[in-house]
Amino acid sequence: MSEVEKVIELAKRRGLFWPSYEIYGGVGGLYDIGPIGVRIKNKIVNLWRKYFVEDNKEFVVEVETPIITPYKVLEASGHVDNFTDPIVECTKCHRIYRADHLVEDVLKVNVERLSISELNQLIKEKNIKCPSCGGDLGDVRAFNLLFSTNIGPYSGSTGFLRPETAQGMFTSFRKVYEVSRERLPLGIAQVGRVARNEISPRQGLIRMREFTIMEVEFFFDPEDDEVPLYKFEEDEINIWRAEDKAKGEEKVIRFKVKELVSEKVVVNPWMAYWMATANRFVKALGISNTFFEEKLPQERAHYSRQTFDQIAVVKGERVEISGHAYRGDYDLSRHAKFSGQDLSVFKKYPEPRAVKRKAVIINKDKLNNESKEFVKEFMTKVANKSPEEIEQMLATGFTIDGKKVSDYVVVTEREEKETGKRFIPHVVEPSFGVERCLFLSVLNAYSEKKDRIVLSLPREVAPYEVAVFPLLERENLVRKAKEIYLKVREKFDAVYDDSGSIGRRYARVDEIGVPYAVTVDPQTLEDGTVTIRDRDTWKQVRVKEEKLTTALGKLFSGEPIEKVGEGS
Amino acid sequence: MSEVEKVIELAKRRGLFWPSYEIYGGVGGLYDIGPIGVRIKNKIVNLWRKYFVEDNKEFVVEVETPIITPYKVLEASGHVDNFTDPIVECTKCHRIYRADHLVEDVLKVNVERLSISELNQLIKEKNIKCPSCGGDLGDVRAFNLLFSTNIGPYSGSTGFLRPETAQGMFTSFRKVYEVSRERLPLGIAQVGRVARNEISPRQGLIRMREFTIMEVEFFFDPEDDEVPLYKFEEDEINIWRAEDKAKGEEKVIRFKVKELVSEKVVVNPWMAYWMATANRFVKALGISNTFFEEKLPQERAHYSRQTFDQIAVVKGERVEISGHAYRGDYDLSRHAKFSGQDLSVFKKYPEPRAVKRKAVIINKDKLNNESKEFVKEFMTKVANKSPEEIEQMLATGFTIDGKKVSDYVVVTEREEKETGKRFIPHVVEPSFGVERCLFLSVLNAYSEKKDRIVLSLPREVAPYEVAVFPLLERENLVRKAKEIYLKVREKFDAVYDDSGSIGRRYARVDEIGVPYAVTVDPQTLEDGTVTIRDRDTWKQVRVKEEKLTTALGKLFSGEPIEKVGEGS
Repeated sequence: MSEVEKVIELAKRRGLFWPSYEIYGGVGGLYDIGPIGVRIKNKIVNLWRKYFVEDNKEFVVEVETPIITPYKVLEASGHVDNFTDPIVECTKCHRIYRADHLVEDVLKVNVERLSISELNQLIKEKNIKCPSCGGDLGDVRAFNLLFSTNIGPYSGSTGFLRPETAQGMFTSFRKVYEVSRERLPLGIAQVGRVARNEISPRQGLIRMREFTIMEVEFFFDPEDDEVPLYKFEEDEINIWRAEDKAKGEEKVIRFKVKELVSEKVVVNPWMAYWMATANRFVKALGISNTFFEEKLPQERAHYSRQTFDQIAVVKGERVEISGHAYRGDYDLSRHAKFSGQDLSVFKKYPEPRAVKRKAVIINKDKLNNESKEFVKEFMTKVANKSPEEIEQMLATGFTIDGKKVSDYVVVTEREEKETGKRFIPHVVEPSFGVERCLFLSVLNAYSEKKDRIVLSLPREVAPYEVAVFPLLERENLVRKAKEIYLKVREKFDAVYDDSGSIGRRYARVDEIGVPYAVTVDPQTLEDGTVTIRDRDTWKQVRVKEEKLTTALGKLFSGEPIEKVGEGS
Repeated sequence: MSEVEKVIELAKRRGLFWPSYEIYGGVGGLYDIGPIGVRIKNKIVNLWRKYFVEDNKEFVVEVETPIITPYKVLEASGHVDNFTDPIVECTKCHRIYRADHLVEDVLKVNVERLSISELNQLIKEKNIKCPSCGGDLGDVRAFNLLFSTNIGPYSGSTGFLRPETAQGMFTSFRKVYEVSRERLPLGIAQVGRVARNEISPRQGLIRMREFTIMEVEFFFDPEDDEVPLYKFEEDEINIWRAEDKAKGEEKVIRFKVKELVSEKVVVNPWMAYWMATANRFVKALGISNTFFEEKLPQERAHYSRQTFDQIAVVKGERVEISGHAYRGDYDLSRHAKFSGQDLSVFKKYPEPRAVKRKAVIINKDKLNNESKEFVKEFMTKVANKSPEEIEQMLATGFTIDGKKVSDYVVVTEREEKETGKRFIPHVVEPSFGVERCLFLSVLNAYSEKKDRIVLSLPREVAPYEVAVFPLLERENLVRKAKEIYLKVREKFDAVYDDSGSIGRRYARVDEIGVPYAVTVDPQTLEDGTVTIRDRDTWKQVRVKEEKLTTALGKLFSGEPIEKVGEGS
């Protein structure tokens, strides 16, 4: 069994996650997150909030927008046209396949982003048949991955389930900008469910039909380069650049965060800011082996000018854990166009700026002396042109009716005061899937020790911080253990357990990743000491009951503790 | 303007919530929760988790299941057949109305739960016309409120958006029960989005097409009456009983929690347990005027044996803030039937119980002496009957071929040991809508003071706990204020603000409900003191900077503080 399979087995047995609707035979791509899984998941979301929202409170806010999205919004975003996968149906058994995956499986070549007609051609040329019944395959066609529905009682009012939370931030941008006092940069964060009608999802929590996204749409002035990269002075980031990738070289280079800007690895410094933040967040999940893979132009989504996938390397698996897209002004411009609303912002300069502007000055007196026909021709050929165009006319000695236009018009330059500018903000988007984070954190934390499973999750994402047990299910021990549990609960996320043998209880907390287990034994009743057992080393130390919470605090922060004994 | 309208206006202006997709003209029943709203909402969810999950850790766990639900699940639950509203369409202008609301509006009578044919009859009898164009109305028909979609690439694979989270808990019950070590009672909690395709939603956050539910499906053995009601020893609950309601009497009676059981107000003590929990939770939101309205049989959902709506009375409005349904074994039994899976549980008795069982003893020797025909007739007419049926045969002197069957069979009683029993757990469901809680908390907290708005939210649901300001936007004050802000942030959910006049900043934090504002003024730089301003009284006290966080802690817990001055 591979480690991935072992984690899936553990997840089922210990209540982390499992396929939904199992009593009805299940539905592909839908998963339940179980009791232990939800505890880990909620902690991952809170950790993300800390890194992406709370620690950036000065310019990031969080919103919640609906999953149900009207047609027009996803038409404007380009999803109605572009959010498709190629499918092909067997003409005999009518099974449907994802055409690119089928071709890849059969021909063992990478066909990412081949067009539909190219896929069609390959299938005909190579005579690819239905892998299930051997029948002929039909024509490849685009299948839209949006789940579609009807809003309200009138038919024809099509809506979709959102495939990303991003459009909620774009459509609410103007409102959020207003209530945030019209300041840039402005990050709008959201944690929420999205749905993608995958053809045949088969990768567990990695490719689901419904999942939770945590993402920030970060709006900024592309001319503003005051980006607080000093926060990441010492941080280093691994990058696999598109230029190397295009040459077929798998060359991951280590950069300091500010070098991403100075070496022009990123098209905007805010890309570096959020990639550095993502790097820290993923480390906090316990995953330290990651790199950012720059996408080739043909691999990028339709709205993106630059994209990096953050790849987590966990137990030999390479999985995209986050995406970082430079969306430019694509989305706001499209929504401005489709909604007919002005989505630009006005940015006041700290001081008004002097700008030189060319102005066209027409000698009206002289023009008035000319014939109607001349004036008419002058107006259409000269007067409605831009200053630059007129300058060129003058330079080439342009004439009307043999008369030089330079006698009737001059271009001068004058200085004007500009108090600010109006523009469409640009956007950088760091985006995570929560369930992927959950799965990869657990896979990363998984190890086996003497035939037993240990999940070495960091404290911040462990389902509980501390377990409290009586050694035996004896009344006086149970009473004491419950009393200690109530005290521990005041400071830590604790769980109490008294059923089954102590060995089975230790095994259970190891398997779900609880860092410390406190045990109350007969000695506790004699001398007021308890044992603390470490999940990863299985070592036990004995501490005074009244110093228990202090000791746990110190253990979590890696400080030495005052112990009265130890063992294992 | 009513207070509800004022709150809606405030919510838009300060970023609590507003209609979604406004740049596209909006979609009825869909709302964005803005930056301040999400902060309050997340705190409400966490508070609910504390009351319903964490404080009941010993028997409540949380899960997350998909919004997308296959047809079969909602067919089993009864939603495909029963989750409908009556609609009627104008034959002339084709506008669609909710038939019961239309009849209520026109005739000013309560038609709740009238059947479709009764509504039809009323419309014809009273000659009700289209309120918009005066045209004739068509026939009333049932409109199903489930949003429907197609799962995967094959047509005909219908799915729905879940209208409640509950079915996720029922379909995953067996799995959650297994990973929770097969113990009852077992509460399965969930916080998640649901969708209901309302005909014409027009009540803001009170009736939305998509919203967030927080609910517990609490599974228990109906014969087990060990319910820890002692937790609510002193709590009192207001009840409007169905028996009084049926008589047309609006009689709200105050009960102690245990009296709900002793006076048989609730059909099961767990109903009282969760109603008492809900009562405390709603109080923690700041809402103290509530009562539980028992639904009449015809008002209850199809699955419920008893239902109470918890009604919050806020600023003269009566709004259902939670629902408490006794769902019995309806859901699990239906899913067992529709899925063909056994969803019963086995409960081991603490001690095996002696039970008396009737047994049928056939005299085989005697039977073997009879003819084949006799034996055959005996086997079909007697041997495959129940002990009770055979007893009756014997009592009536039943014969075969003239021979008394009592010569061939006797029924005896023998004692057996039973180690446990197999049964379908019963369910009590406390259910909250998060957005309603948000709206009602804000409405409840709203007041005006000298033409200004104050939102007196309890600390636990306030968007921030403390604001920190420099009095003026002067560099030395700003630097000091930021330094103090960073210190305050370590202990409290704090926000820093230095833009606009101090008066406007005070007004802003009052309007969004921040309990305390700390101001750094020139005196701070001289003597190291800062002012703390109280949101509700507008009184200011001056404290030593180094005692600031201690002072804030004391203010929150209502203790006296050490102050060096005060003002307002």
